[in-house]
Amino acid sequence: MAVFQTTDLTAASYSAALFGLAATAVLLLMGTAWINRAWRLPVVLCALAALVGVGAVYEGRQAWAAGGGVPVVYHYVGWVVSMPLQVMALYFLAQTAGRLGAGLFWRLVVVAVLMVFVRYLGEATYMNATLAFLIGLVFWLYILGELYFGQMDDAVRGSTGDHLRRGYFWLRLIVTIGWAIYPLGNFLTAFAGMTDDGSLSVAYNVADILNRMAFGVAVLATAVLVSDEGRHA
Amino acid sequence: MAVFQTTDLTAASYSAALFGLAATAVLLLMGTAWINRAWRLPVVLCALAALVGVGAVYEGRQAWAAGGGVPVVYHYVGWVVSMPLQVMALYFLAQTAGRLGAGLFWRLVVVAVLMVFVRYLGEATYMNATLAFLIGLVFWLYILGELYFGQMDDAVRGSTGDHLRRGYFWLRLIVTIGWAIYPLGNFLTAFAGMTDDGSLSVAYNVADILNRMAFGVAVLATAVLVSDEGRHA
Amino acid sequence: MAVFQTTDLTAASYSAALFGLAATAVLLLMGTAWINRAWRLPVVLCALAALVGVGAVYEGRQAWAAGGGVPVVYHYVGWVVSMPLQVMALYFLAQTAGRLGAGLFWRLVVVAVLMVFVRYLGEATYMNATLAFLIGLVFWLYILGELYFGQMDDAVRGSTGDHLRRGYFWLRLIVTIGWAIYPLGNFLTAFAGMTDDGSLSVAYNVADILNRMAFGVAVLATAVLVSDEGRHA
Amino acid sequence: MAVFQTTDLTAASYSAALFGLAATAVLLLMGTAWINRAWRLPVVLCALAALVGVGAVYEGRQAWAAGGGVPVVYHYVGWVVSMPLQVMALYFLAQTAGRLGAGLFWRLVVVAVLMVFVRYLGEATYMNATLAFLIGLVFWLYILGELYFGQMDDAVRGSTGDHLRRGYFWLRLIVTIGWAIYPLGNFLTAFAGMTDDGSLSVAYNVADILNRMAFGVAVLATAVLVSDEGRHA
Amino acid sequence: MAVFQTTDLTAASYSAALFGLAATAVLLLMGTAWINRAWRLPVVLCALAALVGVGAVYEGRQAWAAGGGVPVVYHYVGWVVSMPLQVMALYFLAQTAGRLGAGLFWRLVVVAVLMVFVRYLGEATYMNATLAFLIGLVFWLYILGELYFGQMDDAVRGSTGDHLRRGYFWLRLIVTIGWAIYPLGNFLTAFAGMTDDGSLSVAYNVADILNRMAFGVAVLATAVLVSDEGRHA
Repeated sequence: MAVFQTTDLTAASYSAALFGLAATAVLLLMGTAWINRAWRLPVVLCALAALVGVGAVYEGRQAWAAGGGVPVVYHYVGWVVSMPLQVMALYFLAQTAGRLGAGLFWRLVVVAVLMVFVRYLGEATYMNATLAFLIGLVFWLYILGELYFGQMDDAVRGSTGDHLRRGYFWLRLIVTIGWAIYPLGNFLTAFAGMTDDGSLSVAYNVADILNRMAFGVAVLATAVLVSDEGRHA
Repeated sequence: MAVFQTTDLTAASYSAALFGLAATAVLLLMGTAWINRAWRLPVVLCALAALVGVGAVYEGRQAWAAGGGVPVVYHYVGWVVSMPLQVMALYFLAQTAGRLGAGLFWRLVVVAVLMVFVRYLGEATYMNATLAFLIGLVFWLYILGELYFGQMDDAVRGSTGDHLRRGYFWLRLIVTIGWAIYPLGNFLTAFAGMTDDGSLSVAYNVADILNRMAFGVAVLATAVLVSDEGRHA
Repeated sequence: MAVFQTTDLTAASYSAALFGLAATAVLLLMGTAWINRAWRLPVVLCALAALVGVGAVYEGRQAWAAGGGVPVVYHYVGWVVSMPLQVMALYFLAQTAGRLGAGLFWRLVVVAVLMVFVRYLGEATYMNATLAFLIGLVFWLYILGELYFGQMDDAVRGSTGDHLRRGYFWLRLIVTIGWAIYPLGNFLTAFAGMTDDGSLSVAYNVADILNRMAFGVAVLATAVLVSDEGRHA
Repeated sequence: MAVFQTTDLTAASYSAALFGLAATAVLLLMGTAWINRAWRLPVVLCALAALVGVGAVYEGRQAWAAGGGVPVVYHYVGWVVSMPLQVMALYFLAQTAGRLGAGLFWRLVVVAVLMVFVRYLGEATYMNATLAFLIGLVFWLYILGELYFGQMDDAVRGSTGDHLRRGYFWLRLIVTIGWAIYPLGNFLTAFAGMTDDGSLSVAYNVADILNRMAFGVAVLATAVLVSDEGRHA
Repeated sequence: MAVFQTTDLTAASYSAALFGLAATAVLLLMGTAWINRAWRLPVVLCALAALVGVGAVYEGRQAWAAGGGVPVVYHYVGWVVSMPLQVMALYFLAQTAGRLGAGLFWRLVVVAVLMVFVRYLGEATYMNATLAFLIGLVFWLYILGELYFGQMDDAVRGSTGDHLRRGYFWLRLIVTIGWAIYPLGNFLTAFAGMTDDGSLSVAYNVADILNRMAFGVAVLATAVLVSDEGRHA
């Protein structure tokens, strides 16, 4: 086994992401026992996103230990599963406020999968890099559009719960600002000719920790607050 | 450890299948806590099919990493356990609508096991390839016959629940269309002299993700909808 | 890692046994939540027998991958734990019908452990092979005697439940017919000078799958049927 | 991976200990769901002792596979955690019969840890071997003194429950007779110049299986019997 | 695999920490079923701190086995996740006595993360070692200040429960005395030019066992005592 040195910031970010995501996943899975029925599905989906992150980070770190950088595919195989899971979590979170169409669900899932898959095709040069970047961007903007102006926003806005509205606000912010790192990284490697000497992995790891941990904890906190409200009322 | 490159589509499909099936298995196992008693068995059986898939995919990927293609046995050892599990799930799902014969259960299980085993014997040249292909096909058609014209169809058709009927419709479609990839792959390797340079594994992995994930999620969704219905009524 | 070829039937039987026993263990552990209190212990014991089988099969397969056959000790270390567990499961299953003596319990456990241990001593030539074979046979016949003519049979026969009687009948059959493979294999290696070129492992694996999977599923099915009966009555 | 031969009794004892302790740990963890609140803590502590044993045995076996005997530290790292856990289990078991002092708890835990640690220091020649042996012996006798003549014995003796008294009797016997192997082994290696050619590991493994498995099962059985009594009364 | 010798005290401390923290984590996770709703979150957070410790200790031990000492980053990646978790546990423990501000929560978490991160930057020479040491010290003193003179102290002091007050007292003591080892070790390596020949790892491991195990057990014990009080009252 290769031993990571103290000055190896990439390895350190991988290990911290590994432990942080594992702790998040167990916390969310345990947390499903403390909340109302309707809230369990979004919390479990966030736990799964963290769990998939644990697997992807573990394998990325092994690739780093083998030397010669981490091929970007190690990040994409995690995202292609965890991003749709997080979008689904948002859908079922909004559905606690009011019935949403099944068509919206399928559009969101398919778009989220394709967003990651198209970017991967571009990075692997199976597809024109510029085109892949643009299509990936459009898919991301579509998801943001649904979050800001679609049925989910209507349902949450029409709900009586303050906690739900505040939780939805923060989660949408994570998808808006936190997820901006992914097209940015895609842009840098595809156009600026950047190759990953470890610093891109550090950026991705920090983003993954914040996006998945903060996202999951925000969903659990909202679920606990709404469930407690119902209990005291 | 071998490091997978970004352009290695086979490795990427294995990793995505690994994470996707693991997430499905945990979701279904967690989901058994949200549904009625009678529905727990079909959901757990689907979770087991996904779990077996995780193991089979993990080992297939290791074989791929060792170089020189994935011997087709790595796919068959997973199918010989997971396909009977999925057929059993359908049986117990139909049984929530009305009592089915125990003989039907044993016929379905034995035929599902033999369907996979005979195909394997053909691929391993322990048996005439043409004969094995044809017997495997007949066994698959027998299962389809039971699903379309047998006791299970009668029971579901006679039930009062819309959700159950719709769930059964989609599941039967997966067994009809999704499972068609397996005799097709069997045919190509056995007769067209195709050897797996990775592209067959990609096809099998995509099929396995869709067949097991969609199948499991459809069973869980039906179970949740039927259970909620009972609660509100 | 060694890659198993498609024609390697021994490796295929090991992998199928691995996935099948793992699925059985998880199913039985999940199933303890669906049944009456008194039935949980026998079901958990069968789950443990399957779980031990997973470990033993996994290590046997690794030995096979290392080449040069599977030393028979890999089978015996699994049996020495799982066979007493299955005999205990039968004891506690019969006890749901009526109180059994604690002495019987200890006799059964000790005899089941010694039955496997003595056969191992014979195979490892720590003991005269003929003597070990005969003592192992006597111990097996003792267990069969208790099952057919002892307190357990009386208790089950005196019970009012049809399901329990039918379950006990099938389980006893497994111990009678399914377990006959073990003295047979013992006889062949000890006297006929047979060495394991892989075919004995195939036979043991198929027997282990059927004996542990069928045994466990039969116990769970009986437990579910008896528990449901109690609920409806 | 090294393959263990059938005549390698040390490897066989390690594997049997591994599977036996794993089955014990899962059984005890499942069993906590069947018993009264106050009994859960002792049962979980015994499960943890078995679980720690699984880890220690697994690593000891790997050291054995690497050749050249098992350094005795592999046994001590397991005992230093599992023995205090078992002493704690006895304390909380006795406490179901009547309130015990917190001081006693701390004395028992500290003495149990030191007993193992001092013996280790002697074996590693960090301390005079004779002195370490004698101090370890005194610490063991102190624990036995508390069990036979201290508060715990008073509490159990004053209880109304037959099951508790009988359970306590057997557990104390295990600590008295079963634990005698550890100072004996310590004595043999320290004074008789014995080095572990595998036979000492066999003795330790057999002792560990019996001491932890029998101990855990005795605690669980007592817990189930006492809990059932409360239910019927 | 390298085999650890009996005289290798560093390896022994790693193994004991591994088993001890694993046992702690499982105990705390099982224990969440025995306590009141409000107490589950602090107990789970302590369990996660122990679980992260298991991972960090396991990897540190592998680095030690590879020879040449354990780079200090192996300790820091565990602390950067587990220390914020323990500070959060204290926050939610104090909150059972009275509502605390959300701002305090975020200040505590951010300061705890930065405390570890800044020390790491100093050790990896990404930052001036003296400055990093001093900033790390200030952050630690800030946390102590909040614990002794802030809202949490007020809330606990104002509570009616003796158990809560006593638990808070001990936990604060662990953060005061037990955590002093970390700036001390930081000081020694940064200024006294000490390099880890194994003895620093022994010190860190002993500190980690005591700090995380004692911390977690103290939280669980307080939770059980408070929950039982509520039940009897």
